[in-house]
Amino acid sequence: MSEPTVFLASGFCRLRIDLSYDGTNYAGWAPQPDQRTIEGELTSAISKLAGVQVEPVVAGRTDAGVHATAQVMHVDVPKAADDIPNWVFRLNRILDPDIRILKVSAAADDFHARFSAVEREYQYRLADNNQIVLPLERYNTATWFRALDVDRLNEASSLLLGEHDFVAFCKFREDQKTVRTLKKFHWSRLDSGILTADVAANAFCYSMVRNLVGAAVAVGEGRFEKEWAQAILDNKERVSDSYVFPANGLTLVKVSY
Amino acid sequence: MSEPTVFLASGFCRLRIDLSYDGTNYAGWAPQPDQRTIEGELTSAISKLAGVQVEPVVAGRTDAGVHATAQVMHVDVPKAADDIPNWVFRLNRILDPDIRILKVSAAADDFHARFSAVEREYQYRLADNNQIVLPLERYNTATWFRALDVDRLNEASSLLLGEHDFVAFCKFREDQKTVRTLKKFHWSRLDSGILTADVAANAFCYSMVRNLVGAAVAVGEGRFEKEWAQAILDNKERVSDSYVFPANGLTLVKVSY
Repeated sequence: MSEPTVFLASGFCRLRIDLSYDGTNYAGWAPQPDQRTIEGELTSAISKLAGVQVEPVVAGRTDAGVHATAQVMHVDVPKAADDIPNWVFRLNRILDPDIRILKVSAAADDFHARFSAVEREYQYRLADNNQIVLPLERYNTATWFRALDVDRLNEASSLLLGEHDFVAFCKFREDQKTVRTLKKFHWSRLDSGILTADVAANAFCYSMVRNLVGAAVAVGEGRFEKEWAQAILDNKERVSDSYVFPANGLTLVKVSY
Repeated sequence: MSEPTVFLASGFCRLRIDLSYDGTNYAGWAPQPDQRTIEGELTSAISKLAGVQVEPVVAGRTDAGVHATAQVMHVDVPKAADDIPNWVFRLNRILDPDIRILKVSAAADDFHARFSAVEREYQYRLADNNQIVLPLERYNTATWFRALDVDRLNEASSLLLGEHDFVAFCKFREDQKTVRTLKKFHWSRLDSGILTADVAANAFCYSMVRNLVGAAVAVGEGRFEKEWAQAILDNKERVSDSYVFPANGLTLVKVSY
């Protein structure tokens, strides 16, 4: 991406923080007035240890209810900050157990959690055909009432691979880039009967994964032929036939640099 | 087992109900005054549909915080009860999402969820060596601070296989049988780093799985040699060196008839 790197202030060092969260009880990543957000909790916890107000930068901002097993952020803290090698332990003591810091490491001065990332990968978990979701899996599994055919899901999904303008699959946001390279969009059925979609791209625009899932499902359930998904892409217009799938099935599983 | 079968009353039919639950927010299976229990919730929901007060009988009573992916119960309801084929759907509408009915089926008159069961299997999930538990896995994964050696865990565990008096591994309960046949007690390390113990027996006495896990861990961490676990078994006395592992790591995964 061409956005300028944010330079490191003198006397500060840049930390890369790897973390995981259960998004169920958060209004998403980004701070919002009177709402509990993941960035809000992290900013408060890290600022306490750093002794200054920090401004986290994240690889992939996740929506309300979306989870992460491997999110990455960076944050600049005073070099003189106390006891950084023990911040994993200390931050996890401050944070609620639905956010866990996995690793805190020194990053290069020009490392940027968002702009240096070359690929993001998500997984979507879906119980189709009115399957009953086991209680222990209810937080990260969405449901759909119709039966889905894995081959049809994959046929529709593979048509969308490559570099395209994905504007038809993105919720509108000012100044949002919508040309993205979709590198992976593959469905499997687990032994338990749950469907998973593995979806990777250089970057995603707003609500893109959940729209892609919705388009694949419309083909997978037999409502449309796969050419319909191709047509959405080609027409570059949002279509109301495509259902945006719920946040709870979605997890950010990998960020590559 | 030699306990008498509970006979079916005239005008009633016996239903087998397969179910799953997240035990996190329950004070276990059995009803207790002023506590939310799994049997309590089920008795209330089924009685509502059956039009009479029912008395569920369960394959394996689970302690507070213990989960089940495949629990089995039976219940006797009036043959004239309304709309039994739709009870899966109707019960799941009444129950909170941390209990899910998977199947309701007609059972033979002499089917008994507890006495007809020939084997119960549990899985214990454990994050050793201060591994950080991913938030989405926190409800069914216990933690231990020391590193555990899978080979040592399995050496100790395999010594306990077979028919023995497991009194040393059971919390005291009046009239409890403690001679059990342990058929499986095997540890594996998942790719994620989490340890699992698969534990099967004809039946278990009170808190036996969590005691077996504690004894294996004492060997797996190098505190004792495997002969120590054998000695506990032979001495038939509860030992304070063996730690009873927490409920949240334990899940009932199979009942065989």
